[in-house]
Amino acid sequence: MKTAETRVFSIEALREFSIRTFRHFGVSQDDAAQAADVLACADLRGIDSHGVARLHSYFELLNEGRINPQPQIKLIRSTASTATIDGDNGLGLVVAPHANRMAMDLAEKSGTGWVSVCNTNHFGIAGYYVLKALERDMIGWAMTNSTKLVAPLWGAEAMLGTNPIAIAFPGKQEPPIVIDMATSAVALGKIEMALRKGSSIPSGWGTDHNGNNATNPEDIIKGGALLPLGSDRERGGHKGYCLAMMVDILSCVLSGANWGPFAVPFAIRNAIPTRTVGKGIGHFFGAMRIDAFIDAEAFKGQVDEYIRVFRATKPVPGTGGPLIPGDPERQAEQARLKEGVLLLPSVVEELVAISAKIGVPLEGT
Amino acid sequence: MKTAETRVFSIEALREFSIRTFRHFGVSQDDAAQAADVLACADLRGIDSHGVARLHSYFELLNEGRINPQPQIKLIRSTASTATIDGDNGLGLVVAPHANRMAMDLAEKSGTGWVSVCNTNHFGIAGYYVLKALERDMIGWAMTNSTKLVAPLWGAEAMLGTNPIAIAFPGKQEPPIVIDMATSAVALGKIEMALRKGSSIPSGWGTDHNGNNATNPEDIIKGGALLPLGSDRERGGHKGYCLAMMVDILSCVLSGANWGPFAVPFAIRNAIPTRTVGKGIGHFFGAMRIDAFIDAEAFKGQVDEYIRVFRATKPVPGTGGPLIPGDPERQAEQARLKEGVLLLPSVVEELVAISAKIGVPLEGT
Repeated sequence: MKTAETRVFSIEALREFSIRTFRHFGVSQDDAAQAADVLACADLRGIDSHGVARLHSYFELLNEGRINPQPQIKLIRSTASTATIDGDNGLGLVVAPHANRMAMDLAEKSGTGWVSVCNTNHFGIAGYYVLKALERDMIGWAMTNSTKLVAPLWGAEAMLGTNPIAIAFPGKQEPPIVIDMATSAVALGKIEMALRKGSSIPSGWGTDHNGNNATNPEDIIKGGALLPLGSDRERGGHKGYCLAMMVDILSCVLSGANWGPFAVPFAIRNAIPTRTVGKGIGHFFGAMRIDAFIDAEAFKGQVDEYIRVFRATKPVPGTGGPLIPGDPERQAEQARLKEGVLLLPSVVEELVAISAKIGVPLEGT
Repeated sequence: MKTAETRVFSIEALREFSIRTFRHFGVSQDDAAQAADVLACADLRGIDSHGVARLHSYFELLNEGRINPQPQIKLIRSTASTATIDGDNGLGLVVAPHANRMAMDLAEKSGTGWVSVCNTNHFGIAGYYVLKALERDMIGWAMTNSTKLVAPLWGAEAMLGTNPIAIAFPGKQEPPIVIDMATSAVALGKIEMALRKGSSIPSGWGTDHNGNNATNPEDIIKGGALLPLGSDRERGGHKGYCLAMMVDILSCVLSGANWGPFAVPFAIRNAIPTRTVGKGIGHFFGAMRIDAFIDAEAFKGQVDEYIRVFRATKPVPGTGGPLIPGDPERQAEQARLKEGVLLLPSVVEELVAISAKIGVPLEGT
């Protein structure tokens, strides 16, 4: 096989290829389309690490029977504004959209809806779910735990995932404010990139296996850990640790999933934890009807004004001034809808390998 | 008047003095006791900046008629799981406990309760409210905006408050996990302390009036700003900015309060913003009945195990290993219940001044 090169794909080609990959394992057409939609959203919004770059991991897990392609999602408990569901070890890309819709349906009736999910798997970008809530004039929340990578402050080993928090607020004429952030100082991808480039990394990103601050990316990858947002005690590293723990408890302890270091890893090469404290990984979704609190149009008008006021902040010299959360992703989306999605050689290689295995051609732009 | 000295007070003496100070302005006995309880909680838990050290500010604001001592709290809008209330410009120490109880009452009926509050004032420590939820087997959330002090990432002026987030989870045999954190890298108090000591401050705490990183604390106080959690772009300063904005929108835009740089300042010496975009400041409370999601006893047992697992994390050399959120406050509480609360000379001086004005003796231990 010749070495793959950087290639540009239309988002529709990637979406179609993802659907056919999931279909190969007996995932229903609806579920496959849903799962592909989450991946396409990441690729469009420039979150390259969470789009088709992950398709190979889903492929491997499905191929080894470690993810259930036809889950029977079960309601475990519910009230007027809450539900706990068991994802039956399905794709997070299928279970999570289901849970998110359930949160929105609860909100429709009761003002807000909150759904904690166990026995699920990696759900893609958290931002996808809160964008869905915007379509229904709701404020959406999404959280999930993930493979252990982050040390608690003063800990010398990874005990928590990068456990993201997403929330979004709609504007009227202005685009929405979309927050989607890991609770670690940086994503693992930044460490991997430095490793590939052979460059050192700034203090505050991670530690070596003894808990000492690492400037060599290799020290983090080989038995070290990422640091929580805030990095060290002096700059508030305990706060990032608190946020990661909050996400972990809401997503896992509240639903009955594997929390902390016991999270089921997403990548097949990662060791499975020796201990089980629940089922699968966990997510947490919230939906709040805006008009349960205030007139929705008034709220959106005020968000417009909010955005304008913050854009008018006096800028730090050498910058364009503060961004509005969601700006970089919106820019990426506009560019990629027009120009397509550029995939790195390593990703193209993985897609080519999938293509050969499932007998579905990989088509470009 | 002779210069005040450091003095130790019993928590009951401070509580009684606070009650009588509030009573002086016509605050009802119940409301005064409630307000004093929030302050006493801060003093007990070692959050010195938010206890009786603030009584003088409340005194001044009440004295100038800028806070309504007898508010008629109004329900503006509600659903099965939500409410929006107008605090009628009352003490935050009175309006917020009311709103928090309302959130818990909604949760009692509907599984969760969420209350956004406008036209209110400084509410003390966010942690107070989530501790109350624990008494009812609920997970409590509390947020508030506050006087502008924090720059958005890449902004060269303060646009946001230190906008805290609190949330707590009960254990069974272990004490609860209590998270209560500002969304800035550090509290203003740390800058003020460095200023008093004449020491420099670490990079990442704040900027001067041009937006340049400050190492002289004076540069932050004189027209500069605190930095959000994460400090700079490299270490995730955009994430702290996102969190502060999230708190601001949930507390203020959702309730109709003054958001961002338009927050009504707490201290009387701070300039009142030239523009009004709502009423007073804003809070946001949530309460989630644990048994709306999972068996409450099973949850608490799992939190115990969670705490034990995290305490057993391999420690960074030179540290005792990770703390559990709430540990430092619990230690302070145990010590202060026994030994009383030590107040700095400047705080004693302010209390002595109040004592003289309201004709109520200030008694020590």
